[in-house]
Amino acid sequence: MIPRKILGVYGGMGPAASAEFMRLLAAMAPAKRDQEHPVVYVYSNAQTPDRTAAFFGRGESPAAALRQGLDTLCDWGADLLAVPCNTAHIFIDPFRAQLRASLIHIVEATVADAVKAAPDGCWIIATGATLASGIYEKEAARRGYRFFDASEEVRELATQAIVHVKAGELKAGGAVMDEIAARLWAVRRAPIVTACTELPLAYDASSLPPEMGISSLRSLARACLEALYAEE
Amino acid sequence: MIPRKILGVYGGMGPAASAEFMRLLAAMAPAKRDQEHPVVYVYSNAQTPDRTAAFFGRGESPAAALRQGLDTLCDWGADLLAVPCNTAHIFIDPFRAQLRASLIHIVEATVADAVKAAPDGCWIIATGATLASGIYEKEAARRGYRFFDASEEVRELATQAIVHVKAGELKAGGAVMDEIAARLWAVRRAPIVTACTELPLAYDASSLPPEMGISSLRSLARACLEALYAEE
Repeated sequence: MIPRKILGVYGGMGPAASAEFMRLLAAMAPAKRDQEHPVVYVYSNAQTPDRTAAFFGRGESPAAALRQGLDTLCDWGADLLAVPCNTAHIFIDPFRAQLRASLIHIVEATVADAVKAAPDGCWIIATGATLASGIYEKEAARRGYRFFDASEEVRELATQAIVHVKAGELKAGGAVMDEIAARLWAVRRAPIVTACTELPLAYDASSLPPEMGISSLRSLARACLEALYAEE
Repeated sequence: MIPRKILGVYGGMGPAASAEFMRLLAAMAPAKRDQEHPVVYVYSNAQTPDRTAAFFGRGESPAAALRQGLDTLCDWGADLLAVPCNTAHIFIDPFRAQLRASLIHIVEATVADAVKAAPDGCWIIATGATLASGIYEKEAARRGYRFFDASEEVRELATQAIVHVKAGELKAGGAVMDEIAARLWAVRRAPIVTACTELPLAYDASSLPPEMGISSLRSLARACLEALYAEE
């Protein structure tokens, strides 16, 4: 089957996470040759104002840039939209209903996968803004699900891992992820949801078992492919 | 420095190669945080007619799709254009001068890197169409350079490696690449230019030493970043 809908991706937050999203989209597609893959338009704006800084009132809001980029993707002809950055969704949610194309929501996709993979609950790591905003907790509550809360120290380590990946230091990010898992699993051995799109890259660069990570990047790719390859 | 020029990428030929191009663009950029990376627009059309089939008269030409996609990227506002597919350049070259933005040419970028890395010559592997078209030979001749010709058997193996990567079978592609190098290096131990954008992925999945591969995907990323970060 050849998908006819066009996926529009607002990328660049960060660029390595977006490239990994494109890799997953290609690798996970039910396609054997080029022509069976979807058409994808990417508006990659790494220069979007920092989401976490804005949430904590320390910088310009990315809302206008996000709105403009998503509207641009609609102008270009995108039928579905995806944003491989969890924290950006805090700023998108207020205008999501006004978008001219359907947004495949990373939080909805990831929580759906967490419920399935770890029905008894799992850990979640993300940016401070994503955690403080409650977007994951709210979606989990809607499904009668819960995440275990990581300690302040682990939250600090997650921020370090994100900064490493954004600076291109994958090996250092992987080492921090090993440390995060050691601390979490000393409390309870449950899967870890990597709810910031830089964190799956750090997880893949760590020595941790793949089946103990639930990647928001992979969940978003899975949900996009399901929508693109759905029979019409 | 924050690049102000926008890079337009016609991608999807194939999708895994384009994702790897985006990864290299992110990893090789002189940037420490998101906001120091360039803005990039990607028009990813995996459904572009097969380049090799068209060259050998066995299928529809991709020229119209390529022209339309590159014009679309210009309409969107791209200042520079890049196409991470070598064979596509056979069809782009006839209208390159009419494009409204400057094309960073993968063959020019790759031959420049080959001349530098292996002044005494190197092997080249690519699609049958890229080799038969002579686009690499012509650019090499312009610089007084030469490539060693691989045997028909090796050319056949390169096609197999490309098909494996396009089908998502990276491990199988890597094994074929090991076989290719064994045959080439039995004749002469010289670096191998991977002049089809699927081949660097197979090379990376092989057991071969990184310094003996000259990747057209990496050369294109290098040339794009040089143009984007050039002082204006």
